[in-house]
Amino acid sequence: GHLTDLIYTEKELVQSLREYIKAEESKLAAVKSWANKLDALTRASTSDPEGYLGHPVNAYKLMKRLNTEWTELESLVLQNPSDGFISNISTHRQYFPDEEDATGAAKALMRLQDTYQLDSEAFAKGKLPGMHSSALLTVDDCFDMGKTAYNEADYYHAVLWMQQALKQLDSGEEAGVSKVDVLDYLSYSVYQMGDLPRAIELTRRLLVIDSSHERAGGNLRYYENLLQRQLSEMNKAYEPASEEPIQLGTYSRPKDHLPEREVYEALCRGEGL
Amino acid sequence: GHLTDLIYTEKELVQSLREYIKAEESKLAAVKSWANKLDALTRASTSDPEGYLGHPVNAYKLMKRLNTEWTELESLVLQNPSDGFISNISTHRQYFPDEEDATGAAKALMRLQDTYQLDSEAFAKGKLPGMHSSALLTVDDCFDMGKTAYNEADYYHAVLWMQQALKQLDSGEEAGVSKVDVLDYLSYSVYQMGDLPRAIELTRRLLVIDSSHERAGGNLRYYENLLQRQLSEMNKAYEPASEEPIQLGTYSRPKDHLPEREVYEALCRGEGL
Repeated sequence: GHLTDLIYTEKELVQSLREYIKAEESKLAAVKSWANKLDALTRASTSDPEGYLGHPVNAYKLMKRLNTEWTELESLVLQNPSDGFISNISTHRQYFPDEEDATGAAKALMRLQDTYQLDSEAFAKGKLPGMHSSALLTVDDCFDMGKTAYNEADYYHAVLWMQQALKQLDSGEEAGVSKVDVLDYLSYSVYQMGDLPRAIELTRRLLVIDSSHERAGGNLRYYENLLQRQLSEMNKAYEPASEEPIQLGTYSRPKDHLPEREVYEALCRGEGL
Repeated sequence: GHLTDLIYTEKELVQSLREYIKAEESKLAAVKSWANKLDALTRASTSDPEGYLGHPVNAYKLMKRLNTEWTELESLVLQNPSDGFISNISTHRQYFPDEEDATGAAKALMRLQDTYQLDSEAFAKGKLPGMHSSALLTVDDCFDMGKTAYNEADYYHAVLWMQQALKQLDSGEEAGVSKVDVLDYLSYSVYQMGDLPRAIELTRRLLVIDSSHERAGGNLRYYENLLQRQLSEMNKAYEPASEEPIQLGTYSRPKDHLPEREVYEALCRGEGL
């Protein structure tokens, strides 16, 4: 199938990348050896320029370096060992999945999560029913899942995946995405789920890391005022956010627009009707 | 003076080159870490493509890699950390010595050689009268000196400097220029000085290293026929080339077109008239 072909394409690209790395390393080694030679030379020439140039051989060699050798070095620096790899990836790009395919794959995972009622943690550890091998989701994968949900205004799943990203970051996993970015999406999605105390707590946590984050500062004042008003309307006292981590059932999943979906999911779980 | 400025320009270029090297190394480290990660991934995916894709998390991650991560890597590979260095060298190039300056400096060294009757070996070791520090000439420097003389049809100096280049190559010095190139210039210059037996010997030496060198093969036949004819005309037997290395006095330096030059040189040596 198409995806199987892509697996072999990817392997070919890795080999092409390895060739680029090898070529770039040998170019860099040549440039470094020139730089080391020139370091020693310029240390000698600048420590006593008049004395250096007083020797006619030095004057000749300086002329020769500037007239030919630096130009040769410049040509070496301008060499582009990446051409092969770039043309290789350009040729294959037409067969790559596009944005819609990638979003579709993320949404398929979330449907699977709903069907089997899997929490994001088990999911991120690759433990899916009926799967022998496991495949891990990194912080950046979880963030991407959460962002896909967020962009579809699906805050229920956005909360689940941003919280999983945060959990993995908190446990020390290295990631491209920052804690501030995760907290930014997570706090706003929690607010959208109607949980003001937790939205306030998460926004405060963001501001501890980055106190200059203007939008978060504005959000915090807005959330606090809103909560204040709600509490006084309902004549209630402030209660701090729950310390329980968010789980599948913490917020209720909005009804799907496809009415047959819940039936289908129950059948998949073998629950009958 | 102008040359003193160039010494500082050269130091600045070395620093700029060091910055390029640092940037290129950190780019390469990032590319290598991606390649290592992908090596492990593609080893797993290609060993059992169906099994790999059977796990929905793997399918999602393959999509994501091809849709976004490979594109990010491509942007990284396309980054050009050499821009700063290249613009730096371009700015300074207008003040660099040109071909004529470099040739002039080489010819000045040869005038000095004639004046003080210095053999090329002492010269290459930087031992010049009145100089405290020494400055070495490499194989490539000697070759460049010889070529400068050769291009001016000054075969007397071409022989002296090509032989010095050959001597340093024979003693194991690393060089950009090849022994074949040096022997090519040297044998032809020796022929121009009228020493057929030595031209034949040097051309044979070249052909031992590169038997497919067509011009050298043609030269050898030409030199051998010419020597044969000269010997039979003069009723002489063949004598092999002298085993003595070529020295300052081996061939006589052609008369200079400036008649006062020899007088000037003798005065410089303190010989009086």
